[in-house]
Amino acid sequence: MNDTFLKACQGKKTDYTPVWLMRQAGRYLPEYQKVRSKVDFLTLCKTPELAAEVTIQPVDILKVDAAILFSDILVPIEPMGMKLEFSESKGPILYDPIRNDIAVSKLRRIKAEDDVPFVMETIRMLVKKLNVPLIGFSGAPFTLATYMIEGGSSKNYVNTKKMMYQTPELYANLMEKITDTVINYLQAQINAGVHAIQVFDSWAGILSPFDFEKYALPYVQKIIAAFKGKVPVIYFAFNASAMLKKVKQSGADVLGIDWRIDISDAVSALGNDVTVQGNLDPCILFGTKDLIRDRVAGILHGAKGAKGHIFNLGHGILPETPVENAISMVEAVHELSSKNSR
Amino acid sequence: MNDTFLKACQGKKTDYTPVWLMRQAGRYLPEYQKVRSKVDFLTLCKTPELAAEVTIQPVDILKVDAAILFSDILVPIEPMGMKLEFSESKGPILYDPIRNDIAVSKLRRIKAEDDVPFVMETIRMLVKKLNVPLIGFSGAPFTLATYMIEGGSSKNYVNTKKMMYQTPELYANLMEKITDTVINYLQAQINAGVHAIQVFDSWAGILSPFDFEKYALPYVQKIIAAFKGKVPVIYFAFNASAMLKKVKQSGADVLGIDWRIDISDAVSALGNDVTVQGNLDPCILFGTKDLIRDRVAGILHGAKGAKGHIFNLGHGILPETPVENAISMVEAVHELSSKNSR
Repeated sequence: MNDTFLKACQGKKTDYTPVWLMRQAGRYLPEYQKVRSKVDFLTLCKTPELAAEVTIQPVDILKVDAAILFSDILVPIEPMGMKLEFSESKGPILYDPIRNDIAVSKLRRIKAEDDVPFVMETIRMLVKKLNVPLIGFSGAPFTLATYMIEGGSSKNYVNTKKMMYQTPELYANLMEKITDTVINYLQAQINAGVHAIQVFDSWAGILSPFDFEKYALPYVQKIIAAFKGKVPVIYFAFNASAMLKKVKQSGADVLGIDWRIDISDAVSALGNDVTVQGNLDPCILFGTKDLIRDRVAGILHGAKGAKGHIFNLGHGILPETPVENAISMVEAVHELSSKNSR
Repeated sequence: MNDTFLKACQGKKTDYTPVWLMRQAGRYLPEYQKVRSKVDFLTLCKTPELAAEVTIQPVDILKVDAAILFSDILVPIEPMGMKLEFSESKGPILYDPIRNDIAVSKLRRIKAEDDVPFVMETIRMLVKKLNVPLIGFSGAPFTLATYMIEGGSSKNYVNTKKMMYQTPELYANLMEKITDTVINYLQAQINAGVHAIQVFDSWAGILSPFDFEKYALPYVQKIIAAFKGKVPVIYFAFNASAMLKKVKQSGADVLGIDWRIDISDAVSALGNDVTVQGNLDPCILFGTKDLIRDRVAGILHGAKGAKGHIFNLGHGILPETPVENAISMVEAVHELSSKNSR
């Protein structure tokens, strides 16, 4: 197996900088669209043969150094007791949003092996077939809580923050239940064979540093502590580039960096004892090949002071992205980093 | 006139920390809703008596130290030659988005006195009535360009970035026309009597630091240079807290800070030669009075190292905000900063 990605997670020397792309299995690939045209999104997540197929596609097409399980962060929320639907126009919908004690008390702590067996089945199929490491993942508790409290995406997350500020005990009870579910879910993924895990805190950036430290970070720390030393853990707190010192307190082996910061500034803030992952603006893939190569070079150079570097976008790849540009990006990372290896 | 706000802009000693709120005239106020129920949003912007009335309301109700002209950043775009509409559900719509040379060449450079006379009329009415300074404003060129290119708000701003990367000359031509319009528009506001101006770069945060420096900052610098020494200029680059050193290169007297950064970290990044404005999370106003007071105290303390501090939210006040909490916030700022004056 190509273990470049895992070595970089641990900050070990590698022959070149490994690269994968958030949402690398997805709508920008015609091969994905072909599979997706036959089934709805949630059915795709729940059908191991199909989920495995689309997980493998970008490894073959882009030649990335890691695969990430095809699934959705809300998959484990459904068996907690919420009805989940994906609307083409509105995105995810969780019915009967959680707003009071009764709703929180009704939520189940899931047993992932029994409640979402298709995820583990997908993982078991994938680890037999892949020649690169497989990344498992979960949403972070705060991000999952926002969906559960708001009932989907939101503009200002007023209901979530109202619960935090007005009924902090209720909020804490909800977060503890979610945290237990996440730990169980990630442990089951590790048991099934994933080589690393990423915790996505997609909405961390709606919080001030004070609120992040109080209402999100402790739960992430509990999760990461549970897996420390078992498999590498990547924590990606999106839109939190102005509070990276707090993000580092998560204890993760690898920190995802979005594109809103010069990666050399991120490395300065974080120090040289953690691996960084990132951080090309996904929109650069709409530029020329020269622009892509130039920005790749800048990021490779900027990340040099870190313990390790995994190249990635600063957010998920966009649906309209030309596939040949994503391929060019991966090639540029491999070529430019080999010439000038870490 | 209460000149505390203007003194703070200049970094002069004040008896207490001045405070105003972005979007302080707006939907959270029943008095505003009463006026707004009679006319649509754009008519309200274009009717001096009504625009002046809602501009004054929060000064009377909240006891803030500055008024900001009630208008919208897209008002000067309409006479450039684009049809503008405000939809309750979708927000602003600009018809026939700008995507090619012909569209850019058709755009007019406005003469604000003739093209949006109602704005200057509103200002002239206000300066006679107000006992606090009046802030005029404009959108920054990049933010205005996103609306013009996308035709409204956008999720990923792909069309804007495509134009930047694929046809940089076209993008530059568009930005130069917008910049000329903004300078003319702000000069007309100053001629009519505003005491300070704020340049809102609401979408600066979708740019990487490299792109901000190349595609947004030079145009802001040109605008700010045009008014340097005439009236204080506030530049608010939203969601750019991880690149404040670049934001500072705008040359503004005052920099707006959003809530994603500890204001003491912002001051550390910026140094002690510029006034900061911010940065309470607007959602804190859904908390208890104790929470509000506590967070106000933290921000006042954190901003102490700056040249000057104007208290504000880190983004616009939200429509559902309880008015009594906004009043509490202003009281807390005045009381806590007088005890411990700068």
